[in-house]
Amino acid sequence: LTEKTFQGYFFEDFEINQQLIHGTPRTITSGDISLYIALTGSQHLLNCAETVAQACGFKRLPIDNLLLFHIAFGKTVPDISLNAVANLGYANCRFSSPIFAGDTISVTSKVIGLKENSNGKTGIVYVHSIAKNQHDTTVVEWKRWVMVHKKTPSAPMGIDHIPDLESSVTINQNLIPDDLNFDNFSSDWTACKHRLTHYQVGEIINHRQGMTINDSDHSLATRLYQNNARVHFDQHMMSQSAAGKRLVYGGHIMSLCRAITHSGLANGLWLTAINGGAHLNPSFAGDTVYAASIILDKGHFDNREDIGWLRLKTYGFKNIDEETINELMMEPEQLRISKQCVLELDYTLLMPN
Amino acid sequence: LTEKTFQGYFFEDFEINQQLIHGTPRTITSGDISLYIALTGSQHLLNCAETVAQACGFKRLPIDNLLLFHIAFGKTVPDISLNAVANLGYANCRFSSPIFAGDTISVTSKVIGLKENSNGKTGIVYVHSIAKNQHDTTVVEWKRWVMVHKKTPSAPMGIDHIPDLESSVTINQNLIPDDLNFDNFSSDWTACKHRLTHYQVGEIINHRQGMTINDSDHSLATRLYQNNARVHFDQHMMSQSAAGKRLVYGGHIMSLCRAITHSGLANGLWLTAINGGAHLNPSFAGDTVYAASIILDKGHFDNREDIGWLRLKTYGFKNIDEETINELMMEPEQLRISKQCVLELDYTLLMPN
Amino acid sequence: LTEKTFQGYFFEDFEINQQLIHGTPRTITSGDISLYIALTGSQHLLNCAETVAQACGFKRLPIDNLLLFHIAFGKTVPDISLNAVANLGYANCRFSSPIFAGDTISVTSKVIGLKENSNGKTGIVYVHSIAKNQHDTTVVEWKRWVMVHKKTPSAPMGIDHIPDLESSVTINQNLIPDDLNFDNFSSDWTACKHRLTHYQVGEIINHRQGMTINDSDHSLATRLYQNNARVHFDQHMMSQSAAGKRLVYGGHIMSLCRAITHSGLANGLWLTAINGGAHLNPSFAGDTVYAASIILDKGHFDNREDIGWLRLKTYGFKNIDEETINELMMEPEQLRISKQCVLELDYTLLMPN
Repeated sequence: LTEKTFQGYFFEDFEINQQLIHGTPRTITSGDISLYIALTGSQHLLNCAETVAQACGFKRLPIDNLLLFHIAFGKTVPDISLNAVANLGYANCRFSSPIFAGDTISVTSKVIGLKENSNGKTGIVYVHSIAKNQHDTTVVEWKRWVMVHKKTPSAPMGIDHIPDLESSVTINQNLIPDDLNFDNFSSDWTACKHRLTHYQVGEIINHRQGMTINDSDHSLATRLYQNNARVHFDQHMMSQSAAGKRLVYGGHIMSLCRAITHSGLANGLWLTAINGGAHLNPSFAGDTVYAASIILDKGHFDNREDIGWLRLKTYGFKNIDEETINELMMEPEQLRISKQCVLELDYTLLMPN
Repeated sequence: LTEKTFQGYFFEDFEINQQLIHGTPRTITSGDISLYIALTGSQHLLNCAETVAQACGFKRLPIDNLLLFHIAFGKTVPDISLNAVANLGYANCRFSSPIFAGDTISVTSKVIGLKENSNGKTGIVYVHSIAKNQHDTTVVEWKRWVMVHKKTPSAPMGIDHIPDLESSVTINQNLIPDDLNFDNFSSDWTACKHRLTHYQVGEIINHRQGMTINDSDHSLATRLYQNNARVHFDQHMMSQSAAGKRLVYGGHIMSLCRAITHSGLANGLWLTAINGGAHLNPSFAGDTVYAASIILDKGHFDNREDIGWLRLKTYGFKNIDEETINELMMEPEQLRISKQCVLELDYTLLMPN
Repeated sequence: LTEKTFQGYFFEDFEINQQLIHGTPRTITSGDISLYIALTGSQHLLNCAETVAQACGFKRLPIDNLLLFHIAFGKTVPDISLNAVANLGYANCRFSSPIFAGDTISVTSKVIGLKENSNGKTGIVYVHSIAKNQHDTTVVEWKRWVMVHKKTPSAPMGIDHIPDLESSVTINQNLIPDDLNFDNFSSDWTACKHRLTHYQVGEIINHRQGMTINDSDHSLATRLYQNNARVHFDQHMMSQSAAGKRLVYGGHIMSLCRAITHSGLANGLWLTAINGGAHLNPSFAGDTVYAASIILDKGHFDNREDIGWLRLKTYGFKNIDEETINELMMEPEQLRISKQCVLELDYTLLMPN
C-alpha cells in the first residue's frame, strides 16, 4: 500500500508567498451553459440570449460569471481546502474579462496570509487566486481565507501574518468588460422596467422565490465544477458528522441566490465584482433557499451614459417565511446571528442607466 | 421594503387582445440536446443522430420539438401562470419550423379569451402564444387556458368571452418542415419495422416502459426551461399544500410519455402538432409514469410518397400495472376519471410511408 | 391491443453468428462532455482541457472513452439485454480511435457464443459488439456475456458453445491513438508528479475519495446513454424485486471508480483497453462508492520514449471504511466474495514515461 493518493496540504505545508499551480485546466463548453441554467434556474439575460449579448456588444454568449468562479474555485480545492474545516470568507473578487464556450481556464494561487489558531489544532490560510484563459489573460481573481487542520497539533509558534484586504473592489471603468454597452438596451428583453435610476440606496427587496435543494442538484453542480471536497459527496463519512448529512457547496447557495434575485433585479445584467462574502450557516439537501437584498450604493461611470453600477448585499435564507425574512432584513444584528441566514454576499452589478 | 419583485398578473390584469412580450429570449445550445436526453430518456432518432437528420434533408440536428415547446412555454409562465390555480388545457399547437443549436427563441402572447368563474375568486384566461427564432420566423405557436386567481374576490361582472378553439390542427403539407423527406429512410436506423402502413385506426399500444420521477429530474428539467412557477420548486411552501409535495411540471410528463412511446412508435419521427392536451391528475416525485396510445387517424399528403401522418392520443398513467392500463384503455369513461391517469395528449406525428 | 412494443430477444431468439444492427445512431455533443463531468466528477485531463489535448497532439478535445463505451453499450441493450437476468462480464474492450463532439456512433453486434443453463430457464449469450463513427471507422469494440431468460422454460437441448475470450487486449502500438504524444507533458497540468516510472508492479493504491449515488445521478446517466433496461428506471416494478429498489447501471459504477482513481492515477491519461470486468454485487441509490487499485504490469512501446502502458485492476467498494478496503486489497480471496465489493475492472492506461 503506497501513498500516491494526494491528501491535500495542511497548515504546516503553507508558507507566505508560496505559489501553487493548480491542476487540470478546464475547457468551458456550451454544455456548461445549459447545465448551469438547469442547476440554478438562472434567467440572467446576457448569459442565455446570444442575440441580446450581441446587441450589447459581445461577439458571442458570455458564460455566467458565477459559473466561471465556481469552475476556477474548484481547481483550488485539492491544494487549498481539501483539509479545510471551514471556508471563512471571500474578498476582492473581480471578473476582469468575459469567458465564452471553448475557452480554457487555468488557475494559480499565492499564499498571502497565515495565522495560527490558539487551539494549536488549526490555522487560517489566506490565498490570492488568479484564473487565466488560454491567452494568458486574467479572467477572474479573488482572495479567500479558510481554516485548515494542522498535520500535527502543537502549541502555536506565533505565526500571525494577516494580509490587508480591501473592503470592496475599486470602482472604475475597468469593471466594464470590453465591448459591453447598453446603448440599445430594451426593457422588453427582461420584461422588467427597473433600471439603475429606480433603485434607492437603503432599499430592501425580498425576491420571494424559493428553491428547494435536492441531493442530486448540489452533487451535480459541485462535480461539474470538479470541486472534490469530501464533505459534499461522501454520505458514508458524513453520517458520522454532527449534522449527519453531506454539506452543500457554499458556491451553489451563491448561485441559487443570484438566480432568485432575478425577480426584482432582472436588469442587474452583469455581475462584475464580489466585494466580500461569507457562508453564515451550512445548507443541506432538503433546505429551501430564499433571498433578499439591500441596496448599498450606486453610481455612474465617467463618459458612460448607458451603464451604471449598483452595489448591494444579498442575504440567503433557508426554510423561513416571507414575513420573517422581511423582519430580519430590518434588523441587521438579528440577521447575522439567525440560524436561517446562510449567505451574506456584497457585490456589484452593472445595470442600464 | 419595496415592490420591485414581480408578482405575476391576476385575472383583473388581463384584457381581450392584450399583447404580452415575454422576457428573456433564450439561445438553444447543444447542452440542451444532451440534457433533454438525460432528463427524459428520449431516443427519437431525428433529434439524436445528426447523420440521419442530414440523410432526411436537414442541414443539422434539429432540437426535439417538445424541448422547444417547454422552453417557449417557460417564457410565458411569469406573465400568464405565476398565479395559476391550474393549467387547464392546450390546443392548436403547431411546430412550424425546426430549431437548431445556436438559434434564439423569443415569445409573445395575446389574450384571446376571458371567463370569470362563478365563485368570484378565479377566472379562466385563454392565450395564443407564438415563439419566433432570431430571424423572426414562427417556430411554434399554441393556445392554452389557465385558471388564475383574482387579485380581489368579487361577484362576477359577467366577463364571458370564450374563444373558438379548433379541435385539431389542420392537416396539410405545411405540417412537413422544409427540407424533411423520408426518401432514403431505413428501418435499420430505428431497428423498428413498423411504418405508417402498419398502424390501424383504433389500434391500442401499451408502451410498457416505466419511468420513475426523482425530485432532481423534474427540478432540473423545469429550471432548464426557465419555468419559475413556485409550485414546482418551493417545498417549504408546498408542505402546506394538500399534497404536501412539489408538483411536477405537466410538460415533463408530456416528455416522459413521448419518450416512453418510442417503444412501439419509434418511426413516429417528427412531432408536428399537438391538437389538444390536458393534465388529468398531478404527478409528484416518486411516481412511476407509463404510457399507452390509441391511433385516431392516419393519412397521406398530396404528392408525397415518402411521408404520411398519424394522429393519436397518448395517455400517461402512474403507479399501476400493465393489465390495469390495458383495461382502462378499453373503457374511455373509466380512463378519464381514473386517479392514475395523468395525461391525455392528442397529437400528430410524421412517419415514413 | 397490438404487439408493436418490442419486448427484446429471449435466449431462443439468438443463434451463433447472428448479426444485430442496433437502432438509433447517436451524435455526441459538447453537452455530453459537461454532463459526464457533472455525473461522475471526472477530472481526467485529456477529456476536459482542450489546450492540453492539443498540446498532446489531438486536434480537439476527445470524449472520455468510458462515456463513449456507455453510449455504445446503451445501443445494444434493447436487443441484447432487455431480458437480461444479469450482466456477467466484459472482455477485450479496445478503444481504437478517439471520438470528438459532433461525431455519430452506430453499433452492431455478432452472437459469438450460446450456453444453456441446467435450470432450463435461462442461458448465456456472448456477443461481440462494434461501434463505428460516421466515417465507418471502428472506435470501440468489446465482448460481453449476459444471462437472459428463455421464452419458454424447457429441458436443455445441449447448446454449449463457449467462445475463446482472450484474457487481455494485446499490447502493441495500436493502443496509442493516432496523433497522441506526451513529448511535451508537464506534471503541472495534473499537479501530480507520478509518472509511469514511479509505479511498481504489485503496488496497491487506496484512492480514498467516496462518492454517494443519488437516484437522479444514476437515472440521468443511464438515460443519457439511452440504455432503457427497466431495472434501472421502474421503481413501481422494482419495489416487488428482492432488493425493492432500482438497480444502478453497472457502467455508472465503472465511471465513478475511474473518476475516483484520479487521486493517485491522475497521469493515467488515456484509458485504452478494458481487459476484463465484472460487477460483483449490485449498487443502489444511497450507496457510497470507493475504489482501490493494484498495479498488474507496466511496460514501454517500441520507439516511443514519451509514452508507456500501465495495466491495473481497480476494485469498487461500497459503504465501508478505508481500513477495511486496505485489508480486503491484501486478501484477494476475501475481496471477491465481499458483499461490499461491487466492481472488478482490469484495464490498461497510457501514461507519460
